Amino acid sequence: MSAFRTHGRGHLNGPAVVIGTGLLGTSIGLGLRGRGLSVFLSDPSPTNQAVAVDIGAGLPLSRLGDEQPELVVVAAPPDVTADVVERSLAEYPAATVVDIASVKAGILADLRGRGVDLSRYVGTHPMAGREKSGPVAARGELFTSMPWVVCPSEETSPGALQAARALATDLGAMVTQFGAEEHDQAVALVSHLPQVMSSLVASRLQGTPIHALSLAGNGLRDVTRIAASDPTLWVQILGGNAAQLVDILHGVREDLNRLIGTLEDPTAPGARLDLAQLISEGNAGQSRIPGKHGGPPQAYSWLTVLVDDRPGQIARLLTEIGEIGVNLEDLRLDHSSGQNVGMVELSVLPNKHDLLIEALNDRGWRVLQ
Amino acid sequence: MSAFRTHGRGHLNGPAVVIGTGLLGTSIGLGLRGRGLSVFLSDPSPTNQAVAVDIGAGLPLSRLGDEQPELVVVAAPPDVTADVVERSLAEYPAATVVDIASVKAGILADLRGRGVDLSRYVGTHPMAGREKSGPVAARGELFTSMPWVVCPSEETSPGALQAARALATDLGAMVTQFGAEEHDQAVALVSHLPQVMSSLVASRLQGTPIHALSLAGNGLRDVTRIAASDPTLWVQILGGNAAQLVDILHGVREDLNRLIGTLEDPTAPGARLDLAQLISEGNAGQSRIPGKHGGPPQAYSWLTVLVDDRPGQIARLLTEIGEIGVNLEDLRLDHSSGQNVGMVELSVLPNKHDLLIEALNDRGWRVLQ
Repeated sequence: MSAFRTHGRGHLNGPAVVIGTGLLGTSIGLGLRGRGLSVFLSDPSPTNQAVAVDIGAGLPLSRLGDEQPELVVVAAPPDVTADVVERSLAEYPAATVVDIASVKAGILADLRGRGVDLSRYVGTHPMAGREKSGPVAARGELFTSMPWVVCPSEETSPGALQAARALATDLGAMVTQFGAEEHDQAVALVSHLPQVMSSLVASRLQGTPIHALSLAGNGLRDVTRIAASDPTLWVQILGGNAAQLVDILHGVREDLNRLIGTLEDPTAPGARLDLAQLISEGNAGQSRIPGKHGGPPQAYSWLTVLVDDRPGQIARLLTEIGEIGVNLEDLRLDHSSGQNVGMVELSVLPNKHDLLIEALNDRGWRVLQ
Repeated sequence: MSAFRTHGRGHLNGPAVVIGTGLLGTSIGLGLRGRGLSVFLSDPSPTNQAVAVDIGAGLPLSRLGDEQPELVVVAAPPDVTADVVERSLAEYPAATVVDIASVKAGILADLRGRGVDLSRYVGTHPMAGREKSGPVAARGELFTSMPWVVCPSEETSPGALQAARALATDLGAMVTQFGAEEHDQAVALVSHLPQVMSSLVASRLQGTPIHALSLAGNGLRDVTRIAASDPTLWVQILGGNAAQLVDILHGVREDLNRLIGTLEDPTAPGARLDLAQLISEGNAGQSRIPGKHGGPPQAYSWLTVLVDDRPGQIARLLTEIGEIGVNLEDLRLDHSSGQNVGMVELSVLPNKHDLLIEALNDRGWRVLQ
């Protein structure tokens, strides 16, 4: 039942053990059960474990008996992950052991410091989550189409890597491979930086007159959306990746100091150029974010359609767009409105833009380009 | 033809003069023409003026003859707005003169410094815009349902205020009234702050490996969306409101310094509390942003539905939601996907959440809560 028995396109055979039945662990159990694998669950909280068993994520670990698991998934909190990985490697000598903590280099360094043989260990990070937590919120499809980063180390055996990749694939995720340091740098940039900057903006809204906030538009809403995130979760994430994040924030602070200096003396020579440069650098960075489905960045064309704000109107619009035969790349509802008229912003490939506007006008829709 | 003749619900009678036929001036001309008013246009660029006339935004100002305009709209660039307002007040002694620059206090102070009689002047700010500029991009419906801030001063006469409000109302905008300073403080917070913070985040994405950016999710996309804004426009806006914005940025810098200090020593006593406080303060600020249609902030419940990524699927989903009878509060397409499966995130009133999930499940949709 070792990882080497993973066959064909790399599916797991089981049994699998999941240690930690929070949101992610229970979702993994449900997903693997949905593929017909035997799953055994363990959690320090008897209640959490019982809930996970009750909703069908697996059987209590005590029922595993003498069978050797193919895979152990450590879904414990980050601060005990290394402990549980070490114990699991010792306890299940034929199993691949993966963890799913969202920061990777610290755990790897910790395990190396203990002198543990890491050939059967693979750090991974499923980039999926929900606003809710705990086993009740778990869903077997939580990982569908989401990235799942697999971070093999120098010590990782090919079979263990294959088993870790099979776990992600079996759960419908998109596997992508990074080194642990490289992963932590990447998530500091694409996840932790936007989180803290969003929180810093939203924090400024405290104590301001509601009257002022009545002018809020989509710009503010977009920038502060993730400021609603859970503090408990983010304390662990930010604390676990502090060094990588702080490197990036030093650069942000330099730029911010430069901006403040410019705004303190906005008529000085070069001030306008400085401001233009800030915005231009933002343009350049933003344009590098990959497009939908991980493809290359693509310039979409946007148009806005006015609709009555009642059920069925947006559906009717999208039905007609389907009839016209144009595929939507993105769609947003505009909330800055103060009347019962909705604005639906649509993005399409640039070569479909004029065609779609003409066809919608012909059908009587009010289109703002 | 003075503003005092504005009658009933406060509609304009015209004629109106629009000085400056860029995007906003031409859109105002088109909107007023659409309501049957006589509009006369002027622009220092003969080409811009001819385009605006050709697309039906009004007649050349030379055709006004001896008639006295009811209203003059100054839609000139911010740095010449005060000049044009002063000249217009002198030239049209019976007219209300409004400007539409996006920063207000500096222009008012400038006009006061010149000793101009400001009883017929009203500063305003229509909060509408497009990515494109120039008269060709103009649309008479540009202002529909968007906020239009009207900033009367102590000197403003009731008749002039009424005319300025009528302009916004006639163009379908939502009128809201602020003092000039108060307006500039509010837009510094809800518009200029998110713009520069978004640019600062996006700027960090320059020069990083594309591999790292492949992990980008909706969080990064939301935070950096407005980083794609036009540098030329934003240089004028930020420069014109530098003092208000820099006050807010001093607060951001304090918070950022505190965060950097914490992350530089993440195992120090109190570090975790500091991080939790940053995220919690963001929670508190974010929750104060008004809800859809300017209503009170409202907690919506979100659910996610998996759909095949092909034309017509989202329309079919929304049609069925209409049949179920639940009104959508918001809708987003999820782009972090790497497969041809789309994720549609829907938000509904909390008391409709479970009902909708059950009904969609019954109809065979794959719902993630």
